[in-house]
Amino acid sequence: MANYAQVFLGTAFTSKSFSEVTILKDFLYCISGDGIIEQLFSPLDEQYEAILKEYEGKGNFRRLSNDEYILPGFIDLHVHAPQWAQAGTALDLPLEDWLNAYTFPVEAKFSDIDFAQAVYEDLVKTLLANGTTTVLYFATVHKQASLLLAKICSLLGQRGLVGKVVMDNDDQCPDYYRDADTATALKETEEFIIEVQQLNEQTKQGVYPVVTPRFIPSCTDEALQGLGELAAKYNTHIQSHCSESDWQHGYVKDRYDKNDAFALNDFGLLQEKSVMAHCNFIADEDAKLFAETGTAAAHCPVSNVFFSNGVFPAKHIHELGVDIGLGTDVSGGFSPSLYDNIRQAVIASRMLEEGVDTTISADKRGVDSSRLTTNEAFYLATAGGGESLSLPIGKIEENYAWDVQIINTNLQNGKLPIFNDPLEDIFQKILYLARPENIREVWVQGEKVHQR
Amino acid sequence: MANYAQVFLGTAFTSKSFSEVTILKDFLYCISGDGIIEQLFSPLDEQYEAILKEYEGKGNFRRLSNDEYILPGFIDLHVHAPQWAQAGTALDLPLEDWLNAYTFPVEAKFSDIDFAQAVYEDLVKTLLANGTTTVLYFATVHKQASLLLAKICSLLGQRGLVGKVVMDNDDQCPDYYRDADTATALKETEEFIIEVQQLNEQTKQGVYPVVTPRFIPSCTDEALQGLGELAAKYNTHIQSHCSESDWQHGYVKDRYDKNDAFALNDFGLLQEKSVMAHCNFIADEDAKLFAETGTAAAHCPVSNVFFSNGVFPAKHIHELGVDIGLGTDVSGGFSPSLYDNIRQAVIASRMLEEGVDTTISADKRGVDSSRLTTNEAFYLATAGGGESLSLPIGKIEENYAWDVQIINTNLQNGKLPIFNDPLEDIFQKILYLARPENIREVWVQGEKVHQR
Ligand SMILES: [Zn+2]
Ligand SMILES: [Zn+2]
Repeated sequence: MANYAQVFLGTAFTSKSFSEVTILKDFLYCISGDGIIEQLFSPLDEQYEAILKEYEGKGNFRRLSNDEYILPGFIDLHVHAPQWAQAGTALDLPLEDWLNAYTFPVEAKFSDIDFAQAVYEDLVKTLLANGTTTVLYFATVHKQASLLLAKICSLLGQRGLVGKVVMDNDDQCPDYYRDADTATALKETEEFIIEVQQLNEQTKQGVYPVVTPRFIPSCTDEALQGLGELAAKYNTHIQSHCSESDWQHGYVKDRYDKNDAFALNDFGLLQEKSVMAHCNFIADEDAKLFAETGTAAAHCPVSNVFFSNGVFPAKHIHELGVDIGLGTDVSGGFSPSLYDNIRQAVIASRMLEEGVDTTISADKRGVDSSRLTTNEAFYLATAGGGESLSLPIGKIEENYAWDVQIINTNLQNGKLPIFNDPLEDIFQKILYLARPENIREVWVQGEKVHQR
Repeated sequence: MANYAQVFLGTAFTSKSFSEVTILKDFLYCISGDGIIEQLFSPLDEQYEAILKEYEGKGNFRRLSNDEYILPGFIDLHVHAPQWAQAGTALDLPLEDWLNAYTFPVEAKFSDIDFAQAVYEDLVKTLLANGTTTVLYFATVHKQASLLLAKICSLLGQRGLVGKVVMDNDDQCPDYYRDADTATALKETEEFIIEVQQLNEQTKQGVYPVVTPRFIPSCTDEALQGLGELAAKYNTHIQSHCSESDWQHGYVKDRYDKNDAFALNDFGLLQEKSVMAHCNFIADEDAKLFAETGTAAAHCPVSNVFFSNGVFPAKHIHELGVDIGLGTDVSGGFSPSLYDNIRQAVIASRMLEEGVDTTISADKRGVDSSRLTTNEAFYLATAGGGESLSLPIGKIEENYAWDVQIINTNLQNGKLPIFNDPLEDIFQKILYLARPENIREVWVQGEKVHQR
């Protein structure tokens, strides 16, 4: 019999396909020493009883209670870590004013490493407490503070993908908050990549450097070109924003006479490990370019309400073959929770389908066939995030990382309304009604990183 | 010096007007024996120090910590209590199918008083734990179970307004779930009113009977007429649904050749204590009729996404002089939290203003001037609810009931991202980021009804 580091017994929910969820009722989950799901056993499997007998009662065996369920850890594809300091405020301005009046001043404060420590540690803990096991982060332009964020992820056990942000375009970036010049931006990015790759060697769950031009307006062509080359040289992930708002989309059209997707691609920034945030205004040919290059879209439905001037047509873009995951976009999105974003992904898709203006007749009000089901939104938060990052995460399946959240539905002050429900309904109730307090344990790569 | 039953010291947020919030920094709140805010003192008031000296250290004095803040208890204007059993599920159907396939079968189960006890007790506790101190409930057609809901509110200390639902139209109601006939519906409604008014005599915070035709499709003209008369005879509140979806709006137009508002008014159902749910399709003349009669609208922004085919234009209807409050509409809305509905009220209004379809040019995409600010959504959940019900609740002001929630922003697992913020920002962070676990105490009419 194999020698597992840990064995769990309980019921889990995981995506089988974009639209279907599998229920692993009373399965055994056998985890290897390096935190991988080595084997799954259904109660009907021959070896089930033998393994149960072998592990039951041992310190590395965990039998879930009748009120507990396992979900994959959530994967957040878009977080501006410094903006956690202003989450929930300043949501009344258009994107370009919000950046200049609120966001750049806050981000500039991360030259202060103590402030960075306080905010970043609080954020990583908060995201873990919300069931988020992997995060793709924008830090700030500051190399030291960006490195600190990667270290905090490493220490607290979160799988962090971290970018030092590049903003070198004098024209669009304030003088108090930008890279000193293009050469410095590229040099510091390269140093950052090397240091994080070294840190990754000592980190069980993985921390990864991400090449991060903030968005086209904030970067010179030279920087964009250099960043594409660095990503290729070091085989890193890439992230940026793409066709987010009327203004941003229009800016890029003016500068290059093409859409963001094609402009980014010209600089070598679209590839298998690229994730572009928002994409609300991408055209079908942009989406096809994403699909061809393996570029993913980070759908941020809460943030889009405030800064994107319209709904990302997730269902349609998915049908064009693009990998899609979910992002909170803290603090364009106020919530650190992907549960909130799963709910809002469904809501936004329904509002796109139905339309919003009741003075327009029903047949002209919305865009047919736009809705995402609950299962599909769950897919985006889990398996879709894993595909987007090209990492073996987001599913409860053999050879995937043991990244999970254990949900208790029956707490004294956090009871979900379950009255003899079938498991299908319990799954839906968890997605719509669970709060952080229902998340009792969070595991990343076989390590328990949060409990209460 | 007056003899107060309780004195609190701390900082509170309360609406000053529809758009403005007042911060009562370090005020003293002096509560009478019957649970009314008798006096407020600012630190600048002459008597402040004397009262502080008199009460500090006594058992009926409570000084909030530096991380605690007071908000008015929230007022939920629309809850289908029996539907708590199915909250979070079955959100994929249009209204009429959802009613027949899911909702009527669930509601029919409330002939079983033990099931009713389990669901209603859990719901009332859950709403209190979410900071909701007053609720306008639809129960079911069953008189006994409806009375039980009123009793549970009375016992658990929530201010409950409860309606036994009337559904007597054979045509639109299933045979397994409707009133026996029109005469029985009216007789049982009258008995219900009398019994709840008796219960109210023994209830400090108040429990009130509500005349409750489910909506026009489910009722005969005779029932609607009779219910209008009962409401007048016993001076009760009235609730129903009004112009909710394309289908419902169309049904009433077919039956009466007029909109819901005018049809309801013909039956005497629009008056000062009437609250109509949804109203997504009301025309300006309908809204003016609401304003003239004192009828309020219960805006249910989460539910509307799933069942109303468009956004309630709250800002515009408010400008026409209509009282508006918020409702969760459990379970058309999945969340029992008015925090979630405050957030969604802002979100829905932004999506109405911006539009949703990014293939339409910006100037044609949305409806200008539709947005609600955070302060305005807060008003709807508090003061607007009080106005809608014509009760002295929803504000922290002299002669209002002491209905409050005490929020702690700095819990080990529920820390809000506050880093030396001004109070204005703390208020916004509470509204956007607080979870039930941040709600440490809930008071109704001077009684502590929830704590953790
Ligand atoms: Zn962003
Ligand atoms: Zn309703």
